[in-house]
Amino acid sequence: MSETPADSVVRTVRTYIDTHRAAFLEDLAEWLRIPSVSAQPEHADDVRRSAEWLAAKLKETGFPVAEVWETAGAPAVFAEWPSAEPDAPTVLVYGHHDVQPAAVADGWHTDPFEPVIRGGRMYARGAADDKGQVFFHTLGVRAHLAATGAEAPAVHLKLIVEGEEESGSPNFRALVEREARRLAADVVIVSDTGMWSETTPTVCTGMRGVADCEIDLHGPDQDIHSGAFGGAVPNPATVAARLVAALHDADERVTIPGFYENVAELTDEERALIAELPFDEGEWLRTATSHAAAGEKGYSTLERVWARPTAEVNGIGGGYQGPGGKTIVPASAHLKLSFRLVSGQDPYEVEAAVRDWVAARVPEGIRHSIVFGAPTRPCLTPLDHPALQSVVRAMGRAFGEKVRFTREGGSGPAADLQDVLEAPVLFLGISVPSDGWHAPNEKVELDLLLKGVETAAYLWGDLAASHGKPA
Amino acid sequence: MSETPADSVVRTVRTYIDTHRAAFLEDLAEWLRIPSVSAQPEHADDVRRSAEWLAAKLKETGFPVAEVWETAGAPAVFAEWPSAEPDAPTVLVYGHHDVQPAAVADGWHTDPFEPVIRGGRMYARGAADDKGQVFFHTLGVRAHLAATGAEAPAVHLKLIVEGEEESGSPNFRALVEREARRLAADVVIVSDTGMWSETTPTVCTGMRGVADCEIDLHGPDQDIHSGAFGGAVPNPATVAARLVAALHDADERVTIPGFYENVAELTDEERALIAELPFDEGEWLRTATSHAAAGEKGYSTLERVWARPTAEVNGIGGGYQGPGGKTIVPASAHLKLSFRLVSGQDPYEVEAAVRDWVAARVPEGIRHSIVFGAPTRPCLTPLDHPALQSVVRAMGRAFGEKVRFTREGGSGPAADLQDVLEAPVLFLGISVPSDGWHAPNEKVELDLLLKGVETAAYLWGDLAASHGKPA
Repeated sequence: MSETPADSVVRTVRTYIDTHRAAFLEDLAEWLRIPSVSAQPEHADDVRRSAEWLAAKLKETGFPVAEVWETAGAPAVFAEWPSAEPDAPTVLVYGHHDVQPAAVADGWHTDPFEPVIRGGRMYARGAADDKGQVFFHTLGVRAHLAATGAEAPAVHLKLIVEGEEESGSPNFRALVEREARRLAADVVIVSDTGMWSETTPTVCTGMRGVADCEIDLHGPDQDIHSGAFGGAVPNPATVAARLVAALHDADERVTIPGFYENVAELTDEERALIAELPFDEGEWLRTATSHAAAGEKGYSTLERVWARPTAEVNGIGGGYQGPGGKTIVPASAHLKLSFRLVSGQDPYEVEAAVRDWVAARVPEGIRHSIVFGAPTRPCLTPLDHPALQSVVRAMGRAFGEKVRFTREGGSGPAADLQDVLEAPVLFLGISVPSDGWHAPNEKVELDLLLKGVETAAYLWGDLAASHGKPA
Repeated sequence: MSETPADSVVRTVRTYIDTHRAAFLEDLAEWLRIPSVSAQPEHADDVRRSAEWLAAKLKETGFPVAEVWETAGAPAVFAEWPSAEPDAPTVLVYGHHDVQPAAVADGWHTDPFEPVIRGGRMYARGAADDKGQVFFHTLGVRAHLAATGAEAPAVHLKLIVEGEEESGSPNFRALVEREARRLAADVVIVSDTGMWSETTPTVCTGMRGVADCEIDLHGPDQDIHSGAFGGAVPNPATVAARLVAALHDADERVTIPGFYENVAELTDEERALIAELPFDEGEWLRTATSHAAAGEKGYSTLERVWARPTAEVNGIGGGYQGPGGKTIVPASAHLKLSFRLVSGQDPYEVEAAVRDWVAARVPEGIRHSIVFGAPTRPCLTPLDHPALQSVVRAMGRAFGEKVRFTREGGSGPAADLQDVLEAPVLFLGISVPSDGWHAPNEKVELDLLLKGVETAAYLWGDLAASHGKPA
């Protein structure tokens, strides 16, 4: 059998990766040695050094533009490598170069900022979250060029690598809004997620959004004696509890009027795809350190966390919480609620509905206030989106296996890119649950890391070829 | 018109009081100068000095027995003055000699431990709560003897004056159990309450009891990410809120099965007597620093706080309560509940019912524990109880006005006396709401204080005469 053009691309890419693998891993290790912990002020210089290191490395990789972008907080890195073909699609890759705190005392077997390779894994803080997954794009684009023989990528390639993701991305939205013109893209590829497992390659198709609020409830002007007054005045802690209790009906559906109105319901195909995954509820519960599954009636655990909106009490407090008892009617009570949102839900409509619902339920004699934080919108890429199909093909080619679909229950700054740039967000990640994000002994599987490189190498050509074509 | 024997008693008593009034007030002031603050360890010696001062003063008054009784905490004072008539009833007066903390910095116009008389009032910490109300019994019994011409009172008179009431009486029950034989009485008279107002003399006929518990609810082994797991595992803060919300029905009646089963319902007469009081709900709400009245349907505010049992949340806590938001499913949540109890309710039956009710409502995946404190039983004296009628007559004679009835919504150590000694508890207090218990500028109205003396002077004779007679 003679080699097909496709086979030739694979052979070229793999050879290129094999040849450059050692240098690639050495470079990554160098980057991982910079303790770019955004949450710790004493590492502010390291976060800046990390940004400068990356910008320099991207220039070395071939990006004609690679800049450190200032924000009100830690700096981000922007890089751009235009295609020779003006009509090529523009792709923006998102990642972050800051990392979670880490110390040997937390239970690391080796220095978290001195990477070591052991058993096919590289151990270091940031190995998977997210330096490794940003970095595979450097070798990826070089392998892509090796395969095409061109001087520039098949797509207009842009990278935005922020420096405060582990601190909640407080300045990211403002940065995206400020630099919207330079960040403009047809597709956003987020490389800050993972796959189902080592043996089940998957593409994430969406994240839930989130809206959160604090509710303060005030009753008496001070704590008052529950003997003298109890049973004859409204108790704000009782009112807080009744709000929380009223959030769900007996089927654990959220009772806020209109909450489900525009929810993108799961299609039969989507449910079937979720059901295909080798899900072990016992194992999932162990990961959740929880002792029972529970939630909205009619949905599986994965459907509940990936595709259904929720109302959750994150904190509640009121009255006396010290040791022993204190017979008071408390002066006040406080609630922190968050609502996970799915495609179709508008955070501001949810906010308005929650405000109305709360106001209608607070009784006479109780004063309340409700404050919402800045919401994060949900994002969801339809299964038949051409760019998603490109990711699936590129990944399938790299892994040699059927690629399945997941979603992400959490919420992330990717939604800001979708929002401001009005571009669909896709996810390309090769991390696996055992990588230990935010935990001691974080690692990345080297085989998977190189599959990430390979996927990136195939992706730009596929995206360029399929761009603008109907699914 | 010639003087009746009754008129003669009144004249003798009043003359006696007038004659000894100045010395009585000087003695009281001397006692009030001792800062017997039981809650502050640096005043431990003062509390002891207060006990010793009182014991000496009671001896001087004529009590053949006056002893300082040690407890595991601050000392109490016991005194006894037997009647010459062996078959006379035994009366035990209860009060306390410790006081609340007080400092000029809290807003006192004068030194709280340097009594001053101004505008017919004596200002000092403890003037009303409770030294003044204990002390009126010293001049009271002397005036009683002056009227009868006897050497000993008409009843076997006992006093127990504890030293830790303002610290929650932690050792009182044990003391009463230990000394039950010496404290044994046919009737207990508590002089640690008050009247409706300066112009409405009243007798308190009962106090609510209280049972309180702490409930801990445990879900995940640690706080977990509400994006990754929210909506698919039970949330202990939600469970805590649902327990609180389920405590009451739409009529604000407690839903615990059996809770109302043995409740002594208000009679029509009792309701009429409560309705007779010049109650101003606006003023009551201002005292409660509350902004609406609310409670069990079908009952007035006074009925709710005096005669109806309640379930109140005194504290609730779970999850993140700091500034901003934190998207977690909390590991645990905690509740502090208290149940005010009325006559007929057994605290241990209530405890068992609450335990069953909670256990039945905690869902799979949530572990709970529930711990009850030592309960305080309710006490209630029937309106037609002969001893209560004696108090009403004695007070009516002193005040020259109709005596009405109140109850007390709070719970107190008096219930321990009722419980252990198996004696009915009556209340004789002359303090008024404006006296400022526990507040700066506490005072006692001298006119009312002397009416208290006078009431005590009439009471022992009346009790002796009516003892054992049917109502």
